Amino acid sequence: MAPTIVRSALSVFFEYDTPRIVHIRSKKVGVINRFLQICIISYIIGFAIVYKKGYQEFDDVNSAVTTKLKGVALTNLTDEEGINGTRVWDVADYVIPPQENNAFFVTTNLIVTPAQQQDICEESPSVEDGICSPSKPCIPNTPVVNGNGIKTGECIKSSRNESVNVCMIYAWCPVEKDAKPAEPVLLASQNFTVFIKNNIKFPKFNVSRRNLPDSASDTFLQSCRYANDAENKTCPIFQLAQIVGSANQDYRKMAEQGGVVQILIQWNCNLDYSQSECVPEYQFRRLDSDDYKVSKGFNFRYAENYIENGVSKRTLIKAYGIRFIVTVEGRAGKFNVVPLILNVGSGIALLSVATIICDIVVLYFLKARYFFREKKYLDVKGTDAYETLDEERDDKSGSVTRRKSATSSDLHSED
Amino acid sequence: MAPTIVRSALSVFFEYDTPRIVHIRSKKVGVINRFLQICIISYIIGFAIVYKKGYQEFDDVNSAVTTKLKGVALTNLTDEEGINGTRVWDVADYVIPPQENNAFFVTTNLIVTPAQQQDICEESPSVEDGICSPSKPCIPNTPVVNGNGIKTGECIKSSRNESVNVCMIYAWCPVEKDAKPAEPVLLASQNFTVFIKNNIKFPKFNVSRRNLPDSASDTFLQSCRYANDAENKTCPIFQLAQIVGSANQDYRKMAEQGGVVQILIQWNCNLDYSQSECVPEYQFRRLDSDDYKVSKGFNFRYAENYIENGVSKRTLIKAYGIRFIVTVEGRAGKFNVVPLILNVGSGIALLSVATIICDIVVLYFLKARYFFREKKYLDVKGTDAYETLDEERDDKSGSVTRRKSATSSDLHSED
Amino acid sequence: MAPTIVRSALSVFFEYDTPRIVHIRSKKVGVINRFLQICIISYIIGFAIVYKKGYQEFDDVNSAVTTKLKGVALTNLTDEEGINGTRVWDVADYVIPPQENNAFFVTTNLIVTPAQQQDICEESPSVEDGICSPSKPCIPNTPVVNGNGIKTGECIKSSRNESVNVCMIYAWCPVEKDAKPAEPVLLASQNFTVFIKNNIKFPKFNVSRRNLPDSASDTFLQSCRYANDAENKTCPIFQLAQIVGSANQDYRKMAEQGGVVQILIQWNCNLDYSQSECVPEYQFRRLDSDDYKVSKGFNFRYAENYIENGVSKRTLIKAYGIRFIVTVEGRAGKFNVVPLILNVGSGIALLSVATIICDIVVLYFLKARYFFREKKYLDVKGTDAYETLDEERDDKSGSVTRRKSATSSDLHSED
Repeated sequence: MAPTIVRSALSVFFEYDTPRIVHIRSKKVGVINRFLQICIISYIIGFAIVYKKGYQEFDDVNSAVTTKLKGVALTNLTDEEGINGTRVWDVADYVIPPQENNAFFVTTNLIVTPAQQQDICEESPSVEDGICSPSKPCIPNTPVVNGNGIKTGECIKSSRNESVNVCMIYAWCPVEKDAKPAEPVLLASQNFTVFIKNNIKFPKFNVSRRNLPDSASDTFLQSCRYANDAENKTCPIFQLAQIVGSANQDYRKMAEQGGVVQILIQWNCNLDYSQSECVPEYQFRRLDSDDYKVSKGFNFRYAENYIENGVSKRTLIKAYGIRFIVTVEGRAGKFNVVPLILNVGSGIALLSVATIICDIVVLYFLKARYFFREKKYLDVKGTDAYETLDEERDDKSGSVTRRKSATSSDLHSED
Repeated sequence: MAPTIVRSALSVFFEYDTPRIVHIRSKKVGVINRFLQICIISYIIGFAIVYKKGYQEFDDVNSAVTTKLKGVALTNLTDEEGINGTRVWDVADYVIPPQENNAFFVTTNLIVTPAQQQDICEESPSVEDGICSPSKPCIPNTPVVNGNGIKTGECIKSSRNESVNVCMIYAWCPVEKDAKPAEPVLLASQNFTVFIKNNIKFPKFNVSRRNLPDSASDTFLQSCRYANDAENKTCPIFQLAQIVGSANQDYRKMAEQGGVVQILIQWNCNLDYSQSECVPEYQFRRLDSDDYKVSKGFNFRYAENYIENGVSKRTLIKAYGIRFIVTVEGRAGKFNVVPLILNVGSGIALLSVATIICDIVVLYFLKARYFFREKKYLDVKGTDAYETLDEERDDKSGSVTRRKSATSSDLHSED
Repeated sequence: MAPTIVRSALSVFFEYDTPRIVHIRSKKVGVINRFLQICIISYIIGFAIVYKKGYQEFDDVNSAVTTKLKGVALTNLTDEEGINGTRVWDVADYVIPPQENNAFFVTTNLIVTPAQQQDICEESPSVEDGICSPSKPCIPNTPVVNGNGIKTGECIKSSRNESVNVCMIYAWCPVEKDAKPAEPVLLASQNFTVFIKNNIKFPKFNVSRRNLPDSASDTFLQSCRYANDAENKTCPIFQLAQIVGSANQDYRKMAEQGGVVQILIQWNCNLDYSQSECVPEYQFRRLDSDDYKVSKGFNFRYAENYIENGVSKRTLIKAYGIRFIVTVEGRAGKFNVVPLILNVGSGIALLSVATIICDIVVLYFLKARYFFREKKYLDVKGTDAYETLDEERDDKSGSVTRRKSATSSDLHSED
């Protein structure tokens, strides 16, 4: 008995089940069938395997960006913006804060309010809530909405615009003149350059690359400027005007109001080829929109605090400028047999869809549908079959009946 | 001969294979079958296609965030925290650093240590390693662990707490009094507002949006405040107390110790509808936990350096506050025929699972299983068949045998 | 009639279709079949379900990082680097900017240029474009390329290097001596520590965790230091030398030139187990490469502005240092029945691939292929069959013919 069980169990390993097939020779259905199969196979091979590189495994990029700006500008201004006479601006003046992660900000325009100190003074007449009149008094100890300080309660004639009265406020005095220079103070910033050092790694493949041509010499790096042509597109040094121009923006307009520009570095590498072909591509686009009605562009205020003769004072700077955001995207692929098998496997599974569609055509739309149904189907009735009215015969449990069309094809020999 | 081959090759295009099927009429199995099919079809249509929008292709959001804070606070403090008398705090005072990428920090509490300079002075008695005694001397030129300077080796009576002796240290003198004001200095910061400008783009669909209602007027933007109701949920200006409250936090407690709050902007857009329905939703949550035993909340130290009478001095500020992190998430979908076909295709492939489960029921659990097995299977023996004991017949190569149950159904007519 | 239709419609729910199967007993094909099935099932169970946790649904981590540095260093330098005599450096001196999102920078080396003011002075002789000669004059009002100012046009003998002539420039004077100290000024920074507080949340599962052992006492947190051993790997306080060492870098070399180091915190949590087993792992790696020929390492310039006797002055600092970037990655999984069913379902669909491969073997490579083909296929000719030359018989519409091999198996009984 035991050997019988063992032999039976072993026999399981030497069995194989395969579906029985009706092989239909028909021009109409055959063409539909092959057409659908070709579509599916094309999709699998062309799209999933070749185009989407279904034969590769992928890894996302791990990146570090450091930036270094160079450039000096000279201004010669009157007192209007708080900057007097000849002044030179270098990196430590116009890059605020001095370093950021994946970003840098370049001041292009600014309003300087020097020598502010804690005091009581008049609010700017350009702040709506700071304007007062006998019918609209200044309520003491309330802040001026969107203003520079806290009202003392006093209302006096504005010295900046004599036609209105303004509240006296506790504030850093004198308050800022919110009058942006129409001509950007640092328009010369368009000639500044930024050296973007980008080191990437694909950890899964242990491949490290950087945005420098492997053959780059010191001379090349000291003189090159990025441009979208064969010779210079490997240069990691960008002129700001070039970046803004590539984003289809007008530098003068952006410099006046400020804005946000994205520098997109894309590493799409096929590591089945040489690593030296794994080089980045640059794209530039403006991220903010320039048609805001309120609070246009990009600016912020910061202060330089100091003590003069024991008194805390500060220089307030409202900086307009361009914030550059460096985004690194990338994916590397390398041949691997697992995704290939998976894609082929799921492709083969998809092929059954062609059969299903053809079945619908064959069994419901063709003239000879009853004939084909008869060949495809073997009708079997279980003991608990649901009896339909038109099949009220004396069926015993487990009987086999032909479909209604069976008689019409009795003449055909069958397997 | 050649035409024969050509014709044979051509005939391949006019063929079609479809599996032969046993059509079983049985209430039990039929119900199981249809139930499983309905489950699978419901899953495909309801979940994969309708709920997960399997008929759309998707694109992730590309975002730029700029923030602008407004608000002024007045404090009137005694010397205890290093701030004397009436003082006004504006944006340049409480936003440190003045701009960050996708984040901003608002100072809500602070300890100011003015006029520090490089010198030798006594360590704070609150630093454990700075306390000395004859048995625990100050080792010269070693740093005070978690302290403010380097020990000179001298040990003196503390002037701040006369019951202990402390080491003399090289440090910025006098050292900070690490006594956080219990009442947040800038509790008034809860009334400050932040204008969050968020411009997004779905590059694949070339759709740009921003978090402003298309119809927003200047007046709306100057006076609106975000609130989670129909009228104000489109307003991009948030009161800090509203943000912290929406994150279920107590502003006073957060202001005292500091913390980290996330402002989540979600753009989930169905571009099959009008673009004007593509609007963001805001969520707020606290990211740090407030039950740390050590180093609670969020604070950091920074210094304002200056030169007075040729001596380098600094004002040291320990700033407690709330760091707001703005996270933009989003996905847009638009109808596309490729994902639809793929979802339908893989759904159809899944349908075969219903057949497999029913087969198990039919072939192993039903009373009439031998009858059904006989209908479903055609038993074929290859030349190298593995002979089991109970089938020791005189089989020639490639013979066909009925299953054991065959005789029991000989009475039934068969195709 | 109506009841007939209703009954017919109802009968659809009590039907079940299952493919008819040829059950082949053959050692060769059986072994191939079972082997392929075992491969596929192993893949599904072993890889897709167990290894890739196909029985779980996943959620990505939502994270907040705050960092706090501790440590004091003492330097005793000559004037060469602009720092005179004994000086203590604390957090507010060496962390620039004082706080960043997911990053911090520690100054390890620096060049200080004190008391600069707007003036006319000579360019540094180390700037190539600033060197002049009778044949290469200074063009007035043009910037010195990679230099410190704007040329006045005058050319004088350099006071720093008497062998060359340099241009006079409008600049912050005196200009920086670009001579990096060979011995890092703040090499002692290797003993500084950083407390990294990382709070995470898996929103879908509403699970919050932090990088502190649940049992951590105050004493543990005050004295522990991270190390890659059982006892200390839960400690969230890291010594900088430990971090840099774990990234396989030499601290002294990195401190001299600067660099970028990533601190990777990985949360891979199986929430089917206890939450207390959801703990982070730390990895450290250097992100930039140290073999740049130009502009090695990492440094940036910043200025401290002040007013002395009414004159704007500044201290310019060129800071070399290590930028630490904290990256939090993580995924949590929890049992869910939907992905399990989907994986099992798509696995079953994959099983059909085994049948397809075996079919190819059986129908094209086995000796008995004609015999098996005959069993598997029922040849049916449609009314529009494409006639091949070798089958020119008198076929009527919808006839059934055996395959060529049919006669050879006429002797076998068939169903």
